Amino acid sequence: MDTNAVLDLMWVVIAGILVFFMQAGFTLVETGFTRSKNTGNIIMKNIMDFCIGSVVFWAIGYSLMYGDSISSFIGTPSWFFSKPNEMHNLFFQTVFAATAATIVSGAIAERTKFSTYLIFSLLMTLIIYPISGHWVWQSGGWLAKMGFTDFAGSSVVHSVGGWAALVAAIMVGPRIGKYTKGKSNAIPGHNLLIGSLGVFILWFGWFGFNGGSELAISGEHANNVADIIITTNLAGAAGALSAMFVTWIAYGRPDISMTLNGILAGLVAVTAGCAAVSPAGALAIGIIAGVVVVFSIDFIDKKLKIDDPVGAISVHGVSGALGTLLVGLFATDGGLFYGGGFHKLGIQAIGVFAIAAWAITISFIVLFILKKTMGLRVSKEEEVDGLDIHEHKANCFNE
Amino acid sequence: MDTNAVLDLMWVVIAGILVFFMQAGFTLVETGFTRSKNTGNIIMKNIMDFCIGSVVFWAIGYSLMYGDSISSFIGTPSWFFSKPNEMHNLFFQTVFAATAATIVSGAIAERTKFSTYLIFSLLMTLIIYPISGHWVWQSGGWLAKMGFTDFAGSSVVHSVGGWAALVAAIMVGPRIGKYTKGKSNAIPGHNLLIGSLGVFILWFGWFGFNGGSELAISGEHANNVADIIITTNLAGAAGALSAMFVTWIAYGRPDISMTLNGILAGLVAVTAGCAAVSPAGALAIGIIAGVVVVFSIDFIDKKLKIDDPVGAISVHGVSGALGTLLVGLFATDGGLFYGGGFHKLGIQAIGVFAIAAWAITISFIVLFILKKTMGLRVSKEEEVDGLDIHEHKANCFNE
Amino acid sequence: MDTNAVLDLMWVVIAGILVFFMQAGFTLVETGFTRSKNTGNIIMKNIMDFCIGSVVFWAIGYSLMYGDSISSFIGTPSWFFSKPNEMHNLFFQTVFAATAATIVSGAIAERTKFSTYLIFSLLMTLIIYPISGHWVWQSGGWLAKMGFTDFAGSSVVHSVGGWAALVAAIMVGPRIGKYTKGKSNAIPGHNLLIGSLGVFILWFGWFGFNGGSELAISGEHANNVADIIITTNLAGAAGALSAMFVTWIAYGRPDISMTLNGILAGLVAVTAGCAAVSPAGALAIGIIAGVVVVFSIDFIDKKLKIDDPVGAISVHGVSGALGTLLVGLFATDGGLFYGGGFHKLGIQAIGVFAIAAWAITISFIVLFILKKTMGLRVSKEEEVDGLDIHEHKANCFNE
Repeated sequence: MDTNAVLDLMWVVIAGILVFFMQAGFTLVETGFTRSKNTGNIIMKNIMDFCIGSVVFWAIGYSLMYGDSISSFIGTPSWFFSKPNEMHNLFFQTVFAATAATIVSGAIAERTKFSTYLIFSLLMTLIIYPISGHWVWQSGGWLAKMGFTDFAGSSVVHSVGGWAALVAAIMVGPRIGKYTKGKSNAIPGHNLLIGSLGVFILWFGWFGFNGGSELAISGEHANNVADIIITTNLAGAAGALSAMFVTWIAYGRPDISMTLNGILAGLVAVTAGCAAVSPAGALAIGIIAGVVVVFSIDFIDKKLKIDDPVGAISVHGVSGALGTLLVGLFATDGGLFYGGGFHKLGIQAIGVFAIAAWAITISFIVLFILKKTMGLRVSKEEEVDGLDIHEHKANCFNE
Repeated sequence: MDTNAVLDLMWVVIAGILVFFMQAGFTLVETGFTRSKNTGNIIMKNIMDFCIGSVVFWAIGYSLMYGDSISSFIGTPSWFFSKPNEMHNLFFQTVFAATAATIVSGAIAERTKFSTYLIFSLLMTLIIYPISGHWVWQSGGWLAKMGFTDFAGSSVVHSVGGWAALVAAIMVGPRIGKYTKGKSNAIPGHNLLIGSLGVFILWFGWFGFNGGSELAISGEHANNVADIIITTNLAGAAGALSAMFVTWIAYGRPDISMTLNGILAGLVAVTAGCAAVSPAGALAIGIIAGVVVVFSIDFIDKKLKIDDPVGAISVHGVSGALGTLLVGLFATDGGLFYGGGFHKLGIQAIGVFAIAAWAITISFIVLFILKKTMGLRVSKEEEVDGLDIHEHKANCFNE
Repeated sequence: MDTNAVLDLMWVVIAGILVFFMQAGFTLVETGFTRSKNTGNIIMKNIMDFCIGSVVFWAIGYSLMYGDSISSFIGTPSWFFSKPNEMHNLFFQTVFAATAATIVSGAIAERTKFSTYLIFSLLMTLIIYPISGHWVWQSGGWLAKMGFTDFAGSSVVHSVGGWAALVAAIMVGPRIGKYTKGKSNAIPGHNLLIGSLGVFILWFGWFGFNGGSELAISGEHANNVADIIITTNLAGAAGALSAMFVTWIAYGRPDISMTLNGILAGLVAVTAGCAAVSPAGALAIGIIAGVVVVFSIDFIDKKLKIDDPVGAISVHGVSGALGTLLVGLFATDGGLFYGGGFHKLGIQAIGVFAIAAWAITISFIVLFILKKTMGLRVSKEEEVDGLDIHEHKANCFNE
């Protein structure tokens, strides 16, 4: 293998290892933002997302996403990926696939049946994620051919997860006590310190998520990677700043949870355009995402009365869609603000809409079948006592 | 230094940094799986494993392992390693040596004298680990010459630690209250969330542990590294899945602790063969290890009545030996299932047995002497109150 | 871009990602070593250090540090860094700048107004850090021209932060109840396990901090990087060992907090000389730093009665200055112990003194103005109840 290929492989492997670690970040964010009585259940769901995903994506999912395109819609299936010289790509794509599945876990935390969740998670990595991923990231996919830009997956990974989370949260229904007398009651998370460590880990891993999506670092790719690291970082920072100041003005306090969500919103939003926008553009995207996520979380919670304990729908679904659209404004090549007119923005809108439609439709079908067969929800008693003690016969916290 | 050498050095350094971080993982697993009153003591033991190990392995241990072979048994000692162009190897080997020492800490947690432990930890990195390591990883070692395969240390690191842990756990004896009226009482860990974060960190570091053991990434090494990353990941995932389903069937619940141990068992088991088996072979090794670790932990706890608070004997000793043997079945070059006959399997068995015999014998001698001189165990009062307050005059958890 | 440049860029990016993660380490150390009622406030301060720093350093700070030198004192300002092929350096320098700001946070924890802190943090990254940094790390800076050695920032980063922390801790004053009847009362941190995880993360990141400061890895840089990794690791290990034994002898117990601080002191101290000293020199520097930090923390707390909840002044200010001076003794090229005479030691002393004078003076001016305008301190009621509930209307820990 020549030196450039070694450099590229090494970068993809290291970036993939960083993305792997995001699984720990998701686990900490989700457990920290929810009640301690369900911690073990959330740990298990996050571990299983990754473990099932690792097996399934290797066994068949990768080929459905990256196999030769069938009608620009889906890849040609083949079992047990083993292409020589391509195992680093399998690894990198596997950790991405597991991320999409993990997003759903948070939105339906604290009341969903574990066995049902495992089936849904499996189908997420097996079908839901690879198909829309094929449209965008396989050069023969219909959105790819149209010129849709989603560099590292604001839509392909985050929105797919976020819209599936939306459908799941609606179908599972709110937690007991969340909405009483038409009012939304705050159910505070049990450990914001753990939650904030999770956010730091996610940010850390995001450098691999976005930087690694260049899939190379040799030659002229090197500066692209460095540019991506900067745009990623500035958007995360800007998201925190704008979310903090918005809550300071709107609520009279610099809110901790919202600031943490602002970071994630900025990172999710810049994921689509991290290689297409300037540092100033990334700053703007982060600022916008940080503002929007605050109002989106409030709107979904208080107006739509959809119970999403960790704000996954807003952080991943809304911010992902928003960031994908903003590429149409901020892309230095073709963006509206850079003289490119509305063409690119239109294509971005088509992609955002198509991916949302796919994720919502297929998630609904899958969850509807699961609801009628296995059931989505634990019993009232299990929910009140906590899922750990019933589903896993364990307390995570002891003397 | 030419480009290939730079690539190799860079990869080894980065992998070593990842392995370093495993020390944090071990600390979290051990503290999370034990009671909060002994947390500070476990932190100190883990820190000291690494700090003593770093100094000792540089001062003399490295040469005993990798120095010119004396009778294929031990390296020629030389003080204060300083070979030019080799400091990255010193670093990588140091973080490995510290791992072996750390494994013992968990098995004798909550009742062992801190001062005695420090001496044992020192001797682990100074003598116990380097000598059996020399047999396998120095080309002149007798197991290396025989063709024994232990790529990244299922036996050299994990089993050595695990068998030393077995001897230590027997000699220190069970915790007060662990076995009463011939019954094993569960003593739950104080924080499974912290324990699971530890497992994630270990998995993250394991990519460096196994991938870095290629000791190069240039040229054809690159694809080997990528293959190792995939086999490592699949085995960890498979270990989690099989351990979870086994407990679900056997105990009627998907057990959290056992699932976490299943991940570690899969990772330990694939460590020997990660560069020698196919992805499917790695999956099989992970599945087997995940099943075996559940029954092994139960057997050691309930039948043998050996008190191992974190399951270190099963996770590292048993899984390490198992994984080393399974190379004899699954190695694509020479394994029984690939038409290689029993030859390789026999050599693997010899190595597993020899390393176990060495670790058990020398640990017994060292611990016997320590027992008769310094004593192994804290007083009853110290154990009941917790080691933190007596040995370190501190409470780790306050308002 | 040629292969060597790619290698260098890749190494700087990866090292920068590791340094980024140190922000999580600082957050955990500071929260773990303080009371739970102020956890959210500390999280917010740490996040804002990094987020404000990321924006400010890109917007203007980088140019003040690295722009063409004006009178060897400050760089020529220019807005919004965008030099092609240099974004990896912006990233690496940004994560360093944020580190300096973060250090102050710990010393004034549990009683400082959040809004005032934000302004100070902004000025830290905007003015205080870049100017003294310019003196040393821009080749035209007056200390650089003099031959002052501070390879990775014992003084440039850590002492600047530590001396600013000293001034801030004095001006904010001690926490309520810290000093009563002329006696210093221990206020134990709420979670030493979280604190120790923070130390592990910092150590992990420090390999990037020091190793990445080579700013290259191609050709002969590769061995330099490997040497730096070893000196860094040995100094951290030695700091832990000496701090532990000192407390064991002096207090009759191996103290957990002091051992953790010993690690950090060793790492801070070796940061200046990690590329200039031998492994044995690094060991000596770590041992000295581990001893000094114990007595320094005690002296500042009990004699000077300056309330520094996490020991930041000693760990960063004192250890940083000490380590910078020790380069004058241990540098293999020019150090007193290597036959270099007093020349280098003298230059090191000038640099240490100049940087301390700068940091103390400018911090005093800034904080004096902030005290007279916004106020430095929360109300007595806010402090007693905890900053989380008043400043952020949140409890970090719930059911």
